[in-house]
Amino acid sequence: MAAVYGTSMRTKLPLVGFILQVSMIILYGVFVRYDKDSDAKYETNTTDHAENEFYFRYPSFQDVHVMVFVGFGFLMTFLQRYGYSSVGFNFMIAGFGIQWAILVQGWVQHFDSNTGTIKVNLESMINADFCSASVLISFGAVLGKTSPVQLLIMTVIEELIFSVNEFVGIYILRVKDAGGSMIIHIFGAYFGLTVTRMLYRKGLEEGHPKEGAVYHSDLFAMIGTLFLWMFWPSFNSAIALHGDDQMRAVMHTYFSLASCVLTTIVISSLLDNHGKLDMVHIQNASLAGGVAVGTCGDMMLSPYGALILGFIAAIISTFGFKYLTPILASKLKIQDTCGVHNLHGLPGIVAGIAGAVVAACASEEVYGFSLYRTFPDLVPSDMNSVEFKRIAQVYQDIKPGQGRTPLLQGGFQALQILVTLGMAIGGGLVTGFILKLPFWGQPPDKNCYEDNVYWEVPGEGEEEEELGSVHQKLGGDGEHA
Amino acid sequence: MAAVYGTSMRTKLPLVGFILQVSMIILYGVFVRYDKDSDAKYETNTTDHAENEFYFRYPSFQDVHVMVFVGFGFLMTFLQRYGYSSVGFNFMIAGFGIQWAILVQGWVQHFDSNTGTIKVNLESMINADFCSASVLISFGAVLGKTSPVQLLIMTVIEELIFSVNEFVGIYILRVKDAGGSMIIHIFGAYFGLTVTRMLYRKGLEEGHPKEGAVYHSDLFAMIGTLFLWMFWPSFNSAIALHGDDQMRAVMHTYFSLASCVLTTIVISSLLDNHGKLDMVHIQNASLAGGVAVGTCGDMMLSPYGALILGFIAAIISTFGFKYLTPILASKLKIQDTCGVHNLHGLPGIVAGIAGAVVAACASEEVYGFSLYRTFPDLVPSDMNSVEFKRIAQVYQDIKPGQGRTPLLQGGFQALQILVTLGMAIGGGLVTGFILKLPFWGQPPDKNCYEDNVYWEVPGEGEEEEELGSVHQKLGGDGEHA
Amino acid sequence: MAAVYGTSMRTKLPLVGFILQVSMIILYGVFVRYDKDSDAKYETNTTDHAENEFYFRYPSFQDVHVMVFVGFGFLMTFLQRYGYSSVGFNFMIAGFGIQWAILVQGWVQHFDSNTGTIKVNLESMINADFCSASVLISFGAVLGKTSPVQLLIMTVIEELIFSVNEFVGIYILRVKDAGGSMIIHIFGAYFGLTVTRMLYRKGLEEGHPKEGAVYHSDLFAMIGTLFLWMFWPSFNSAIALHGDDQMRAVMHTYFSLASCVLTTIVISSLLDNHGKLDMVHIQNASLAGGVAVGTCGDMMLSPYGALILGFIAAIISTFGFKYLTPILASKLKIQDTCGVHNLHGLPGIVAGIAGAVVAACASEEVYGFSLYRTFPDLVPSDMNSVEFKRIAQVYQDIKPGQGRTPLLQGGFQALQILVTLGMAIGGGLVTGFILKLPFWGQPPDKNCYEDNVYWEVPGEGEEEEELGSVHQKLGGDGEHA
Repeated sequence: MAAVYGTSMRTKLPLVGFILQVSMIILYGVFVRYDKDSDAKYETNTTDHAENEFYFRYPSFQDVHVMVFVGFGFLMTFLQRYGYSSVGFNFMIAGFGIQWAILVQGWVQHFDSNTGTIKVNLESMINADFCSASVLISFGAVLGKTSPVQLLIMTVIEELIFSVNEFVGIYILRVKDAGGSMIIHIFGAYFGLTVTRMLYRKGLEEGHPKEGAVYHSDLFAMIGTLFLWMFWPSFNSAIALHGDDQMRAVMHTYFSLASCVLTTIVISSLLDNHGKLDMVHIQNASLAGGVAVGTCGDMMLSPYGALILGFIAAIISTFGFKYLTPILASKLKIQDTCGVHNLHGLPGIVAGIAGAVVAACASEEVYGFSLYRTFPDLVPSDMNSVEFKRIAQVYQDIKPGQGRTPLLQGGFQALQILVTLGMAIGGGLVTGFILKLPFWGQPPDKNCYEDNVYWEVPGEGEEEEELGSVHQKLGGDGEHA
Repeated sequence: MAAVYGTSMRTKLPLVGFILQVSMIILYGVFVRYDKDSDAKYETNTTDHAENEFYFRYPSFQDVHVMVFVGFGFLMTFLQRYGYSSVGFNFMIAGFGIQWAILVQGWVQHFDSNTGTIKVNLESMINADFCSASVLISFGAVLGKTSPVQLLIMTVIEELIFSVNEFVGIYILRVKDAGGSMIIHIFGAYFGLTVTRMLYRKGLEEGHPKEGAVYHSDLFAMIGTLFLWMFWPSFNSAIALHGDDQMRAVMHTYFSLASCVLTTIVISSLLDNHGKLDMVHIQNASLAGGVAVGTCGDMMLSPYGALILGFIAAIISTFGFKYLTPILASKLKIQDTCGVHNLHGLPGIVAGIAGAVVAACASEEVYGFSLYRTFPDLVPSDMNSVEFKRIAQVYQDIKPGQGRTPLLQGGFQALQILVTLGMAIGGGLVTGFILKLPFWGQPPDKNCYEDNVYWEVPGEGEEEEELGSVHQKLGGDGEHA
Repeated sequence: MAAVYGTSMRTKLPLVGFILQVSMIILYGVFVRYDKDSDAKYETNTTDHAENEFYFRYPSFQDVHVMVFVGFGFLMTFLQRYGYSSVGFNFMIAGFGIQWAILVQGWVQHFDSNTGTIKVNLESMINADFCSASVLISFGAVLGKTSPVQLLIMTVIEELIFSVNEFVGIYILRVKDAGGSMIIHIFGAYFGLTVTRMLYRKGLEEGHPKEGAVYHSDLFAMIGTLFLWMFWPSFNSAIALHGDDQMRAVMHTYFSLASCVLTTIVISSLLDNHGKLDMVHIQNASLAGGVAVGTCGDMMLSPYGALILGFIAAIISTFGFKYLTPILASKLKIQDTCGVHNLHGLPGIVAGIAGAVVAACASEEVYGFSLYRTFPDLVPSDMNSVEFKRIAQVYQDIKPGQGRTPLLQGGFQALQILVTLGMAIGGGLVTGFILKLPFWGQPPDKNCYEDNVYWEVPGEGEEEEELGSVHQKLGGDGEHA
């Protein structure tokens, strides 16, 4: 059906892209302004430049940036002839997505109604990268089966719903989710799975000749894996509170991911008849520990707690790749190209549960008075209460909170898992419905997982050239070598 | 003609390289000394280590370092059989170039005539990386057509002229150019274009079988593209003033580059008959926004101004690749292998103009009193003037400046574009004249764009090996698999 | 012989891996605790978060992390069909190794006997990365000839002995070795060389068809080389003292490595009959300068001293690859796959000697009173001595030291070279003896340097696919293109 409309992007992509980019320029002109750390006017004679948020967060920001553009981009190059699209569409989604995220996160979450503007700063930029990462996770589920126009439309819708869900989590339910395992990973995974379910292709039920890897494409994918793996401590700590909270998020992620690598190797070998390792597992499941520790990373999880989370995540993820993905495809008609359910979905749920449990166990005994800094909603709401005054004697910057018990905080954490699932699936249904319309230039089944639908590919030339040299050796007399 | 002299590097390269490296050692022994941030003697009992410039600039320095060595190096691996040379000669140029840059920039710009020495610090090291980047841009223009000896000679001459042009810009015309779009990009591009014009090869007029990419070489090139793209905010901010100036340079570059990606995709698709994307555009034009915002990045450009610059740069750059590069080659005999004119030349001029305009529009209304920190030459020259005293009441570290108006500052900015063009073209003519001498081991036309002139290449083996397996399948009975 | 036992990892790898990972979890539960920079309880109302060690060391830590996982991992992908194993086993060794290193370094070096625990912080994590790097160096020597189970066993033993040697160096002989050129590089190299000697394979004496590179594998290896090269300044400075010491370590490494690149090119060209460059040299010898400057990097070596060390290291290393490696293989039966002797062994010895000489030349004239900060053992041991009081007048944080002369400090530095060699060779003998046992699933000679012994390799498919397209062009009529 799609083929009737053709896959040419000649008018669609320039048109949609142009409208989006020009809209960005106009909307930024209307809404987006500097905040105090970037506006020259706010700089005073006595400004201590070292206090600029820049110096606390810039290295983490750059690491997150690498994860979004190189990490996600190259992770998806494992397909033998879809490398241009993997890296290129990843680039397009994220490049547009960060612009759009600044707007939607700003509008929904911190719109300054006095001035009618959104203030941007380094934290906005990190959050924009995070929001785009969520779309890239969804992209992994539909990889190889969508046109760039569809991907742009998905980005527009998904980031909007993402921002609403994030608003509910952070400002209404008031949950902790430093590394965004619920808000980014669960959301992106189930959104993408719903979309790919809606875009179900019967013609791919029996697989597709280009769906697998070749030798070098697997090595390119490892570039993505490793940059994700190495910089994940920055991802989980980038917007954590300064000081020990940020340090803990780094340390826990470091330990969880370390544990995840060896465990993935153990399970991958165990599940193969000859004990051989599967690159798909190494590329993906060894990252699950980063997701699993993303919600409670800045809490007092303890180092061995981090090892356990990495251990559990690796087991669930590797089993998922081996057994669950085929079942999802055959029984539920969910064709999940990159297995995002195993890397982001299930480990995200593990993270959400772990976050709820660790928050519920929080106590002054373990945290001291910084309990009220890490969990500001445990602070009593009544400033005149005895309890409030007791805390205020030690922790002077205290502000009234919600007066939650740790258990209640844990309950809200758990609730956010369900809210996120609901929003992701709901949003995915709407998006999938729109993307199913036949005129977006989506590829016919036989051209799925192939760059040459949307890209000028020199590969043809390459094959000819290689052929040339074969020809020649096989009896040719050509002079070119 | 060149072939008469042969391409063997056996004596030339070791000789030239040895002389250069030993000269470096001797000259460093004579001239180069620690500055206060690295000299143990200057450390006092009361030193606050956090104030060491190291902690303000090291992360940015490392990002710039990655851009110079991996970014530029891999960007040029797009050629099918020139990857060793692209990465390897890039490594050679930059490795030698940073040593030489410390010396020439030191001699020309901040020679301490009392002690007869040059003091090095982290900022010198960043500037040395910048200076080398300029040579790497020129390398892009002559890629595939020069011997390593020619490249070393070009590095020696180009960095010397670069330093003089930089001196004129920073110390005489007193322009702002935080990301070096004029001083690095315009200079490197037009220098390289002039050299490649001087080295014009009629034999390459009809193209060359190895001039294109193959599938995997394009993916290697994307590694370069992405590391340049991601770390460009660090490039443009690395030597900006501490605090909000540095933060603005990061933010503007982030937005400009984001806008540039989608715009490049729009234009690339528009310019193809079937709407297919061209990897050359994605690899290069999506970076043009980083160049375009490099001069005014630390000024109060505003976020939407950054989006506009990225938008314009992408359009100019992509059109340039499609239409201008072929014209330059056929009409002006400028064979620009990497299209540096489109990525660095034209966007550099856009940057220079934008810098002039934004500087001319600067005002106390927008900048507050930090106007005089960002543009120190707007400070009155007379310390006793009423205006000086008015500013000094608020901004206590003030020093007398040039008393320029913003418009005059803008004028000087614009003048620097012309100065840079003049120096670049003049320097390129001299360099091209020297490199045209026939005995530098340059490759004959038919061996251009091929590693095996200067490298031991296992590729031959590879082809045989692949052939082996083909042979065997086509009817062979070999056992090797 | 090994073949009798088979190479299947089905039971061995899961079993060994599972035991190790579960042991980690248990041991961490028993021993590993937060230190003050990560424990919420230690945070007070007046804590200045900017003083958290996190902000001084995190960027360097991340750079070191990249070197360990991408740097070492990709450097070893040069082999044509051993990329999965190079990157994957590197990942496994380092992922497990950092967990184990935290424990053994903690037990041996800073066990808190009051609480029976090990405190971890960012410096522990950097040191754990360093310790794992040492194992990865040894891995380079045995690359292609060992099973993953053997590698895990090697990691367990090597890190234990590493920690003891480090304890002797840092706490008993009290040497300076900021970049670990003795403790990491010499140790890892000679340990690995001893192991590979013990695992000598007569069947590989005449070489092996898969031992070389192919075109693209060499480019993948350059990714490793460049990330090692660029981030080496962080490696050598990551645990140096704050402030000017850290800055010097960065600067010296920057200069040494710059000098090393051009020198490697000079020698590589000189040693080839046609002056062609050898990728093996560029990939490896250009890094030797980072090793050579690793012991004295934070001392007052001076910039030109750094250039000289890089120059010497490159010459020794390149000559080593050309002449020494073949001799070691044929005469001493040391089959050193990656040539770690040339990159880590010999340059490590250069570093050790340089460290001894530079320490012996240290003086108050050059260092000022920070001589006693950089070399705390030069402080007199008697607090009541005239000399101690003289220093204490200026340098108030002073603590009693060993009262060494610079010459004595130099002597201890030199002694550490010998101690390290002894421990490395002794440890390698024990490890080699254990790894020689025939039941670890090691590959038979003919399957060395091949991924498909331990990995599911799509390469087979790839060859078929490429063949397909050849078939078709050679007269086929298939429709797939």
